[in-house]
Amino acid sequence: MIHKLVEKIKKTKAPIVVGLDPMLSYVPKQIRQKSFREFGETLEGAADAIWQFNKGIIDCVYDLIPAVKPQIAMYEQFGVEGLKAFQKTVDYCHEKDLIVIGDVKRGDIGSTSSAYAVGHLGKAEVGGSRISVFDEDFATVNPYLGTDGIQPFIDVCKEEKKGLFILVKTSNPSSGEFQDRLVDGRSLYEYVGEKVAEWGAQHMGDAYSYIGAVVGATYPQVGKAMRKAMPKAFILVPGYGAQGGKGADLVHYFNKDGLGAIVNSSRGIIAAYKQEQYAQFTEENYADASRQAVLDMIEDLGSALQKAKQ
Amino acid sequence: MIHKLVEKIKKTKAPIVVGLDPMLSYVPKQIRQKSFREFGETLEGAADAIWQFNKGIIDCVYDLIPAVKPQIAMYEQFGVEGLKAFQKTVDYCHEKDLIVIGDVKRGDIGSTSSAYAVGHLGKAEVGGSRISVFDEDFATVNPYLGTDGIQPFIDVCKEEKKGLFILVKTSNPSSGEFQDRLVDGRSLYEYVGEKVAEWGAQHMGDAYSYIGAVVGATYPQVGKAMRKAMPKAFILVPGYGAQGGKGADLVHYFNKDGLGAIVNSSRGIIAAYKQEQYAQFTEENYADASRQAVLDMIEDLGSALQKAKQ
Repeated sequence: MIHKLVEKIKKTKAPIVVGLDPMLSYVPKQIRQKSFREFGETLEGAADAIWQFNKGIIDCVYDLIPAVKPQIAMYEQFGVEGLKAFQKTVDYCHEKDLIVIGDVKRGDIGSTSSAYAVGHLGKAEVGGSRISVFDEDFATVNPYLGTDGIQPFIDVCKEEKKGLFILVKTSNPSSGEFQDRLVDGRSLYEYVGEKVAEWGAQHMGDAYSYIGAVVGATYPQVGKAMRKAMPKAFILVPGYGAQGGKGADLVHYFNKDGLGAIVNSSRGIIAAYKQEQYAQFTEENYADASRQAVLDMIEDLGSALQKAKQ
Repeated sequence: MIHKLVEKIKKTKAPIVVGLDPMLSYVPKQIRQKSFREFGETLEGAADAIWQFNKGIIDCVYDLIPAVKPQIAMYEQFGVEGLKAFQKTVDYCHEKDLIVIGDVKRGDIGSTSSAYAVGHLGKAEVGGSRISVFDEDFATVNPYLGTDGIQPFIDVCKEEKKGLFILVKTSNPSSGEFQDRLVDGRSLYEYVGEKVAEWGAQHMGDAYSYIGAVVGATYPQVGKAMRKAMPKAFILVPGYGAQGGKGADLVHYFNKDGLGAIVNSSRGIIAAYKQEQYAQFTEENYADASRQAVLDMIEDLGSALQKAKQ
């Protein structure tokens, strides 16, 4: 799957992932009203609205990008019905040949991490059957529990040729509270990054490992340092756009081969129509606004990477 | 909800939570066969089997204990069908007046943590409706992202009079890898524990805060130290029984009022019938074996706490 990610990035020239994190407030009125008419103002109605919203965006951007990253919390907030919409979204993205990074940030003690790994990346054994479950291609994982919380995910990834992005330095303002604390003279996130490099050596593709890292766009100096510390890890970079990151800040997250990072934008793309810059598309054509936002992001990153080369 | 937890612990004399972490391999053959006959060897069949298994145990132990702790990973591994079984389990435990601690270990950046908080503890806003979703009473939360990953959970807890248990020191063998690292001369988990005490001050009950901590039974010295560091926090203690913790090791997790901790056992209770000690119950009467295991655990903890008083 890391090969496919690299190939698709080369082909699309877009080291970009679209975060499918639908809030009901992003969903255009016409879609909400239709779903509520059909299913009522219920969890089912909410789930239908976010699914229809996603489908519109996917149809408009799938040819431009290698991957999407649905944030499961946005579905889980609507319970079982929301998780059906998550499942539909993953399946539909696969139909469109998109790589799906499940942003699930799971992580627990060994046997429990195994169950999460099965649910998101593996196959459940039920009697004599082995059944794919949510079936994402990559999942994000929280490292707080240490190696034996991570290893079961790696084991399933090896079996299924899938991958992980392990939280190293997150994009939020208080990420430093624990992640930046100095441990033996260097920050905790550096130490976690070093472990990611170690874990990654277990499951290598060609140039890159199947085991990558999350490093937020909002801390460019950290990105630069972590790029060096984990040369074989793909870095998933959240925090572009709405959270403040810009293309020029992100060139050091990439290796000299122009690869090694994939930058996520969620709100900046899926709710683009709400920005002044894309207001001309109107609410009705929200997905066209998203397409334009993707094109602009490709241009922003591409020209930043081009400049950095010179 | 913290009041209810305290009242129920006093009434049952059982500072105990039963971990409803059903693996298919724990489910007696007669239940599995019946579910597979009805639904096939499918995710639906697996989900039905674990739900029927849970129901049997709940019916046999609900009068003895204050609370249960379903581990959502064990349901999530069977996808949407598994999560329906999770929902049924939560609802049924509420019917039996049990407090439900959702062991979900979620945690993300602010807006995403908000969505998780809504899904597990709060109410989703859909048009003009406000709808309870999974509706657990407490949830476990991962602190790696810092305050702004935790605050949205606290905000929902305040609104709903619900609570949290924040991971401080987990019970697994490699928990020390990051959690024990020294930060300014003390371990990271101590620092996290201090933050838990701070966060907890925002949402106090009478003697205890709604915001508690997870400290594993497998590290008794840590339990003793963290008891002092977070005097107002209820401590959820995983790792009793199958993971190695014993009653005598756990007395220092409690305050002098005999309260302040609640000890979880999962496999040791729900799969008790597989242990030599309870083999006489046979697979068919697995839930009676679970009842006996609960009674034995109450006795073990009770006598340890009694001895500690003398």
